[in-house]
Amino acid sequence: MKVAIVGIGLIGGSTAIDLRAAKFCTEILGVGRSQQSNETALKLGLVDKIVTKEEALQQADLIILTVPVNILIDELKYYLDNMQSHQVITDMGSTKGIIIDAIQNHPNRKQYVASHPMAGTENSGPAAAIPHLFKDKVCIICDKEKSDERAVALIEQLYQTLNMRIKYMDAHQHDMHAAYISHISHISSFVLAATVLEKEKDEEAILEMAGGGFESTVRLAKSSPDMWAPIFQQNKLYLLEVMDTYIEKMYHFRNLINKNKNEELKQFMQSANEIRKILK
Amino acid sequence: MKVAIVGIGLIGGSTAIDLRAAKFCTEILGVGRSQQSNETALKLGLVDKIVTKEEALQQADLIILTVPVNILIDELKYYLDNMQSHQVITDMGSTKGIIIDAIQNHPNRKQYVASHPMAGTENSGPAAAIPHLFKDKVCIICDKEKSDERAVALIEQLYQTLNMRIKYMDAHQHDMHAAYISHISHISSFVLAATVLEKEKDEEAILEMAGGGFESTVRLAKSSPDMWAPIFQQNKLYLLEVMDTYIEKMYHFRNLINKNKNEELKQFMQSANEIRKILK
Repeated sequence: MKVAIVGIGLIGGSTAIDLRAAKFCTEILGVGRSQQSNETALKLGLVDKIVTKEEALQQADLIILTVPVNILIDELKYYLDNMQSHQVITDMGSTKGIIIDAIQNHPNRKQYVASHPMAGTENSGPAAAIPHLFKDKVCIICDKEKSDERAVALIEQLYQTLNMRIKYMDAHQHDMHAAYISHISHISSFVLAATVLEKEKDEEAILEMAGGGFESTVRLAKSSPDMWAPIFQQNKLYLLEVMDTYIEKMYHFRNLINKNKNEELKQFMQSANEIRKILK
Repeated sequence: MKVAIVGIGLIGGSTAIDLRAAKFCTEILGVGRSQQSNETALKLGLVDKIVTKEEALQQADLIILTVPVNILIDELKYYLDNMQSHQVITDMGSTKGIIIDAIQNHPNRKQYVASHPMAGTENSGPAAAIPHLFKDKVCIICDKEKSDERAVALIEQLYQTLNMRIKYMDAHQHDMHAAYISHISHISSFVLAATVLEKEKDEEAILEMAGGGFESTVRLAKSSPDMWAPIFQQNKLYLLEVMDTYIEKMYHFRNLINKNKNEELKQFMQSANEIRKILK
């Protein structure tokens, strides 16, 4: 089997490393988005060769799209329009509803399986690719009943090879959960970084005090704007909801401090502590 | 030398482990705040024996206060009132200005060195104590010119034994930096946990999606309310300032998403990415 990976950054590159190590396929073709990415991906041995979209469509049995979600729909449509009947395609994007809706009536819809491996780091690009990025993490496959069973089986095999735990979800449910849990985490971290950089003009103090919890809490603020801006746009409705709740709670916290309501402040934190029951 | 540790929780207990391993002293006396903590500290071998405050004052050469900041001033005054002239006392609290101001005219002021080792985990209590908690982290000593040189030298030796990097700061500067960097990080994490727990009623989804950045960003929300409520109260003025900036930026981020201002959204995130220049 030959696999084509479209977009060879952190996610695509890390996928390539693990697939190669597991001998999942005989050849890994790369369709990069820039000359520089292509050269890095080749140099690092992530892919066996760089090909055009047309060549990928001629040669690959499985096509994996790992491009940012703003160009994902157009890419997906292009490949679906031109696919051979034995080929299977999946994407690894962080939003699912808008993508599934956009191709719902496509004649080759059943060759597409929507998936979202919940893994990543704050780094991006092919040089950020690492082995075992996906190990023991969760991959969500959406609306599997809308895909061929054979296609779903291949994608399940793909994620099992990456050592992921597979869960199934409706695409819009996925987007809601992603907004309420993962995307708001990224936003709180971006806002934390922007706030600290504005208020704290002493860079040495930031470095010295980073050990007091700032470093880990702000990690996601290093993430790629090109990747995240389109995710936030596409998942806007659920995100605005959860951001409003966040802002309301932050105001409440502020007022409890301001009015010296120590017992209520403790109660607020005790209710936040409940997260320990879910995340040990 | 004999050391007394007052309050044998995460910080006091972890200090005891490292001091013992380094043979910093011949005996470690513990003054616990509850029967249960005392028993745990003894059972885990953190301290050699549990003593009363009076016994600590009779026997210890160095007294280390690791109690929550709301009772720290009273404790510090008690020990200062009754100290022998050769004894040295320090505290490891997260606020410094209010404590230093409270004892500024005490006749034994010079035997006290104000310090803040910037280390911790989200856990608390003696059972949470671990070796090497402080290793390679920063310890801030405040207003050192107000303490005896001999006392400062002993406290420097203490933190060198814990393998910390020592920095010096004015107490009120310390509080400002702590609010702007460490305390706001804790608050953003508490608010994130409270928000997700309110919006997301599907606990399994939280567990499944936690790998997408939520788990690390929410870690500090597991911290002890009894420890943090008094810190937030004591550092209120600087905290309200930085919380207002945070809320303003979160609103701005929300509005950029709401109004589909994609370029400005990216610019916001690019400015947040600048944190990479300080924290590699």
